[in-house]
Amino acid sequence: MALYSALGVFVCFEGGDGSGKSTQSKALAAWLEAEGYAVCLTFEPGDTQVGRTLRDIVLSPSTGELSDRTESLLYAADKAEHIRQVVQPALDRGEVVITDRYVDSMIAYQGVGRPLDRDEVEHVARWATHDLRPHLTVVLDLAPDHGLGRFAERDRIEGESVEFHERVRQAFLDLAGRDPDHYLVLDARLPVDVVAAAVAERVRPLLEQATKS
Amino acid sequence: MALYSALGVFVCFEGGDGSGKSTQSKALAAWLEAEGYAVCLTFEPGDTQVGRTLRDIVLSPSTGELSDRTESLLYAADKAEHIRQVVQPALDRGEVVITDRYVDSMIAYQGVGRPLDRDEVEHVARWATHDLRPHLTVVLDLAPDHGLGRFAERDRIEGESVEFHERVRQAFLDLAGRDPDHYLVLDARLPVDVVAAAVAERVRPLLEQATKS
Repeated sequence: MALYSALGVFVCFEGGDGSGKSTQSKALAAWLEAEGYAVCLTFEPGDTQVGRTLRDIVLSPSTGELSDRTESLLYAADKAEHIRQVVQPALDRGEVVITDRYVDSMIAYQGVGRPLDRDEVEHVARWATHDLRPHLTVVLDLAPDHGLGRFAERDRIEGESVEFHERVRQAFLDLAGRDPDHYLVLDARLPVDVVAAAVAERVRPLLEQATKS
Repeated sequence: MALYSALGVFVCFEGGDGSGKSTQSKALAAWLEAEGYAVCLTFEPGDTQVGRTLRDIVLSPSTGELSDRTESLLYAADKAEHIRQVVQPALDRGEVVITDRYVDSMIAYQGVGRPLDRDEVEHVARWATHDLRPHLTVVLDLAPDHGLGRFAERDRIEGESVEFHERVRQAFLDLAGRDPDHYLVLDARLPVDVVAAAVAERVRPLLEQATKS
């Protein structure tokens, strides 16, 4: 059953590689800190000790072939540890948690991008994360070729076809379309400060339950 | 939906540590090879390249605390890769696959031993393995203290309490009790050759669909 933390604020950035998630995560964190809020800026996969090992496995081209289910389960394991070690403790302290990627990425890349049953992948991802949902997910929408062009060397996921990344993009938009109260979709080609201002506007009313540091 | 390979023969040994699974796996393989069958002798976790890394994470005491869901998902990832790289290809070649541990270990250790929802853990394990079931699972039954006494240094799982291992033992027996056509429960304290003979007797009628090497 979908769970929204009653303490802290949980914000997630989703979108393809090169869509500006990292830049916007940092911009939001900087604004919140300037406003006096305690912020936990994090990302998936790889922001725990175990997660770093799992990130190396799933992203390194040297891993070679990996079954689609193995890949999904490794991402899910990363999420389970990330929730327990990083996200939930920060929410319990009343912080604003900003994560660069979360469950939607697994649904989009593994459940829709890979030839797997989307609902089974979502089930595993929700189980891994105790079905804890972000109060707001910002989707930075970008046509795949724009983003991919920014990388000279590609990892195991970035190296997939444009068709793969187009399915992923559509999956993010579908998730947003089903739950507009908890999503904000923005054109990733807009200027950085315009995107940041639109994000801040949606985050501001959520801050009542956050702790000032 | 439960799937039994129409090619090859899939035999699994389950039971606590120290119950003789490794010894009996090897004895069965040696007998089958002497009879002229092609055999694939394998184990979980850790019999693939990725699996070895995952085995280190889940078993090494240096890993420290790991959330129960993370642990389960890492075992599931090991299984997904093991099925794809080792078990299914060997069955497709008509071999007799003998594995030391499989899905039942995850149900018993993570689903029943750990404070997780047993059915959710089984669901993840079945999804990881495409619900491929062994034609025969041999449970080598042993009271926990007997087995644990054989280890001077314990890993993350062996180091759990006797109560934990008693729950695990009961979980194996419950699985066997639900599906007697596909299970053989033997007292692990019986002499090695007596156990081996009982296993061979149950395996012999399954060999019609196996390939002679």
